[in-house]
Amino acid sequence: MNTKYEECLKACIECLEACNNCFDACLKEEHIKMMAGCIRLDRECADVCSYAAQAITRNSPFVQEICKLCAQICDACGEECGKHDHEHCQKCAEACRKCAEACRQMVA
Amino acid sequence: MNTKYEECLKACIECLEACNNCFDACLKEEHIKMMAGCIRLDRECADVCSYAAQAITRNSPFVQEICKLCAQICDACGEECGKHDHEHCQKCAEACRKCAEACRQMVA
Amino acid sequence: MNTKYEECLKACIECLEACNNCFDACLKEEHIKMMAGCIRLDRECADVCSYAAQAITRNSPFVQEICKLCAQICDACGEECGKHDHEHCQKCAEACRKCAEACRQMVA
Amino acid sequence: MNTKYEECLKACIECLEACNNCFDACLKEEHIKMMAGCIRLDRECADVCSYAAQAITRNSPFVQEICKLCAQICDACGEECGKHDHEHCQKCAEACRKCAEACRQMVA
Repeated sequence: MNTKYEECLKACIECLEACNNCFDACLKEEHIKMMAGCIRLDRECADVCSYAAQAITRNSPFVQEICKLCAQICDACGEECGKHDHEHCQKCAEACRKCAEACRQMVA
Repeated sequence: MNTKYEECLKACIECLEACNNCFDACLKEEHIKMMAGCIRLDRECADVCSYAAQAITRNSPFVQEICKLCAQICDACGEECGKHDHEHCQKCAEACRKCAEACRQMVA
Repeated sequence: MNTKYEECLKACIECLEACNNCFDACLKEEHIKMMAGCIRLDRECADVCSYAAQAITRNSPFVQEICKLCAQICDACGEECGKHDHEHCQKCAEACRKCAEACRQMVA
Repeated sequence: MNTKYEECLKACIECLEACNNCFDACLKEEHIKMMAGCIRLDRECADVCSYAAQAITRNSPFVQEICKLCAQICDACGEECGKHDHEHCQKCAEACRKCAEACRQMVA
């Protein structure tokens, strides 16, 4: 694998981890009602990152299209998580931003 | 859920089943070398159909984009499987064509 | 595929749909705090049902172990959803009970 | 997350990568017929590693059961890949052994 692939894979895994940590933590928050958007998008984003990681490593003929979709979902999740001050949300927003960028590098 | 959603979900599940049946059968074929493209695309297509089924049923904000990707991968898998006379390949090609059509109806 | 396989596959897909419908509906509930357990288990259960559907249709050598795990997660999700009066929870609990039973028939 | 979790997650991701690299490479081998078992188990193993990575990071109530299943599938994939001299098979067999060990540490 070349560097671009390895960096994108790493960013996808770190984003999957941050999104799932945020999903778990949001479900335990006292004021969960305001976290509903986060919970939904954390799952969406973890799932597309997992799907992209599989696609990258198996040399999928559709890796470009899948990474493009991943970047789009990372953007949405990062925007929502970025609105909340919880540490798990801020970490998730940062991981989403990095993953979206790495996925765009794959497509470029 | 409305009719369009239910029809797309049904088509995705039937396509997932046909692709995975074809994957299993191709791996048992005497002349497996010529089936390598089928095996690869059967997995790609089963995975995107599974992903689309999850997206449709959880009311994903990205269901349009995911169904668009699913249609594209179904097209490729159906084209490859359609080249082979094995019954499992022909059934898979037909399921791919129906699923691509149903996914395009979702996006329309 | 034989009848036992087809029935288990059908039960997994219906359970996946009911769990994801419940996940989506729980996130929109006014009193979401009491639904946190449901939301978590709906995702767990939809994911294992999706995994089992893939395993059944690709003739996985581990289909017995995967269906056993699926039955266990369906039990937990069905028990949690059964505590809530929302129609989406009651439908989910029923789908989980049927899927757990079908998975146990696969393993028997 | 504690150390045991982080090590298991890392081992799952490295195993997913090795299995998918091996899947891709096996499909390109001249003597693909003898690789059919590898191709099937590479997909099984990559999928359960992906599933385990999601379970670990979202604090799944079923992480023990999922890691136990993952160890079992890694054992089978590692045994099959270990029979072949291709570098991708040997690397995969080694990743499977490490992942099975890390998953057993999670369950212990």
